[in-house]
Amino acid sequence: MISARDDQKPLIAITMGDPRGIGPEVVVKALARESLYPICSPFILGDVKILQRTIGTLGLGMKAVKVEAGSHFEPLPGVLPVLSLSDLSKGEGAGEIPAKEGARASFLYAEKAAKMAMEGRVKAIVTAPVSKEAISRAGIPFQGHTEYFAEISGTKEFVMMLAGDRLKVALVTTHLPLNEVGKSLSEEKILAVIGITGRGLQDYFGLKAPRIAVTALNPHAGEGGLFGKEETVISRAIRRAGDRGLAVSGPWPADSLFHRAVQGEFDVVICMYHDQGLIPLKLLHFDTAVNITLGLPFIRTSVDHGVAYDIAGKGVASSRSMEEAIRLAAEMAKRKSKT
Amino acid sequence: MISARDDQKPLIAITMGDPRGIGPEVVVKALARESLYPICSPFILGDVKILQRTIGTLGLGMKAVKVEAGSHFEPLPGVLPVLSLSDLSKGEGAGEIPAKEGARASFLYAEKAAKMAMEGRVKAIVTAPVSKEAISRAGIPFQGHTEYFAEISGTKEFVMMLAGDRLKVALVTTHLPLNEVGKSLSEEKILAVIGITGRGLQDYFGLKAPRIAVTALNPHAGEGGLFGKEETVISRAIRRAGDRGLAVSGPWPADSLFHRAVQGEFDVVICMYHDQGLIPLKLLHFDTAVNITLGLPFIRTSVDHGVAYDIAGKGVASSRSMEEAIRLAAEMAKRKSKT
Repeated sequence: MISARDDQKPLIAITMGDPRGIGPEVVVKALARESLYPICSPFILGDVKILQRTIGTLGLGMKAVKVEAGSHFEPLPGVLPVLSLSDLSKGEGAGEIPAKEGARASFLYAEKAAKMAMEGRVKAIVTAPVSKEAISRAGIPFQGHTEYFAEISGTKEFVMMLAGDRLKVALVTTHLPLNEVGKSLSEEKILAVIGITGRGLQDYFGLKAPRIAVTALNPHAGEGGLFGKEETVISRAIRRAGDRGLAVSGPWPADSLFHRAVQGEFDVVICMYHDQGLIPLKLLHFDTAVNITLGLPFIRTSVDHGVAYDIAGKGVASSRSMEEAIRLAAEMAKRKSKT
Repeated sequence: MISARDDQKPLIAITMGDPRGIGPEVVVKALARESLYPICSPFILGDVKILQRTIGTLGLGMKAVKVEAGSHFEPLPGVLPVLSLSDLSKGEGAGEIPAKEGARASFLYAEKAAKMAMEGRVKAIVTAPVSKEAISRAGIPFQGHTEYFAEISGTKEFVMMLAGDRLKVALVTTHLPLNEVGKSLSEEKILAVIGITGRGLQDYFGLKAPRIAVTALNPHAGEGGLFGKEETVISRAIRRAGDRGLAVSGPWPADSLFHRAVQGEFDVVICMYHDQGLIPLKLLHFDTAVNITLGLPFIRTSVDHGVAYDIAGKGVASSRSMEEAIRLAAEMAKRKSKT
C-alpha cells in the first residue's frame, strides 16, 4: 500500500490525464506550489517519463520519482511521487504519442485511482482531463470520468457541482441539447439533485443547513405560466425537499439569482441546464473553478477544462484550476474526517 | 414646442411610468443628480402633482414645475420641468390611484414621448416602467413600450440590447419558453439582429467596426452536432453577416464567451435567448444596466427593472438604472449628432 510518511494529511491521488493533452503540464505546475504540501500528501497516477520530460520542457527544478505500490514516500514541492502505470516515452515527443496508446493509459490512471479510493487507500481523487472520444476509439466504452466512477462504485445518482470562491452551482442536466432540457426534468430528478447537493455541502463544506436556491427554467420563472410550465415540476420538487428539512427555495428567475447568491444569500444554486450554471460560474471564476462530483462514496474533484490539444506541450496552460482542485479536495477530506 | 434654453444639449423626454409603481421615485431621484445636467436637458412626461408628492415623501429639496408645450425651460437639479399629461392626485396617496386610471396615464406619457420623438422634437426617450397587464386591462392593447414604439414608427425589426460598463448583450429572442427558443431561431432573424446591433454600435457608440460575438444555443456549441443542431443555422447567419463586412464571429460556446467579452475581446455578445444574455449582464451590472431598443428611428433607453409595486412609495428603490439610462441616452444622442 502506498502511503505518505505523514499520515495526518490526506493522501490524494492525482491522475495525469491524457498524456497528449495539457494534463501532465497542469499537474506538474500545480505541484510546484509549496502551499499545497502543508494541507495534503499528493501523488500522481501517470507516466513517470512523460512527467519528467514535461518538467524539463517547463524548465522547472523538480524531479518525478517513481514510487511503488506498498512503499512510503515523502511529498515535497520539488519531488513528485509517481505511481507509474504506463511507459509511453520511447524517445518520442509528447505530441507524438500514438492516440490509442495515450488514451488507454489515461484510462488506466483513472481505473487505478478509482480502485484505490474504493479500498479507502486514498482520501480523494483529483483528475486531469482525458479525451472521451479518444478512449472510446481505443476500444474502451467510456462516457467520462464521472460516469465511470459512478459505475465502478455502483452509484446511481450523482451531481456535477462547480465551485469557485464566490459561487457554487450544481446541475440537474449537463450535456443535452437545449430544447431537450425541459422534457428531461422530472420531480424525482430535481429532488435527488437537491438532496445530494445538500448532503455534499454538509459533509464536505461544513455547512450545517446549506441555503439552497433553485433556478427556474424559463425567463422570468415563466411569469405565472405565460412562458412555459416546467416551473410547476420544479416547485413540487422544492416543496418535497423542504418537507425533508432542507433550506431550499425557488424556482427563482435565473437572471437575477446569481447576483443574490454572490451577495451571500445562498450557498449554492441548483441549475436546470449546463449553460445556466456555467455562464455565471465561468464569468466569475474563469480559470479557478473546480468540478466536484457529489454522490460518490469518495471525494472527487477535477479541473474545469478539457485536454486542449491545441496548446499542449507549449508551456502556456494555466494550472490554476488544477491547483484549486487539489486544494479543494484536501479541504473536503479534512472536513469529511471531522463529520 | 417645448425646448430647453440651452439647445446645445440634447433634449430628453423621460416618461414617469406607472404612477403606482416606483417610476416617479426613480425619476425624481435620478434627476436629483447634478452630473446629468451638463450632458442633457431632461424633462418629464408625467403628472406634476404625483411628482411633487413623491419629492415630498422622499424629503428632497426639489420642485416639480409644470411646463407647457411651446414653452422654454431651464432644467436644473432642483427644478424638474414636467409636461403634465394627467391629474391623478386628488388628495389620495400614491398607492391609492385606481389601477385603470394610472395605467391609462402611463400609456399617455409613452404616446406623447413617441410623437415628440417622431417629430424630432426630442433627441431621445427614456422610459420608466409601466405594467403591460394593467394597460391591457385598462382597454388599451399594449405589449410593452418597445413593441408600441416599433408600431408607432413603422419599425419591423428591432433589437433589445442591454448595456453595462463592462458588457453589452443583444437578444435574438426574449420572452419565450426555453424549449421554444430553438425552433424560433431562423437565419434571417439572427442576421437581422446582427445587422441592427452592428449599426447601433456604429451610430450610437462610436465604434467604426464593432467586434460582434454570437453565442451558440447548445452546451459546448453542440459539440459538432452531438448536443443539438441549431448551430448550423447560427453559423450560416454569421457567414452572411461577415460577407456584408461585419466583424462577427461564432457561434461560440456561451459558457466561456462572456469572460472573453469582458476581457475586451468583443464589443457585444448576441445571445439566442433571454437568460443567456441576462444572467451574465445582471451578475456584472445588477442595478446599473440599461435597456436600449435598437432599430427605432429615435433613441430609446429604459431602466432594467419593472414597476415593483411591492416597494413603491417606500423610498427604497434604487435609481441607478434610471440615472444610467438618462446618461446613456445623452451620450448616444451626442454620438449620433456627430455621425
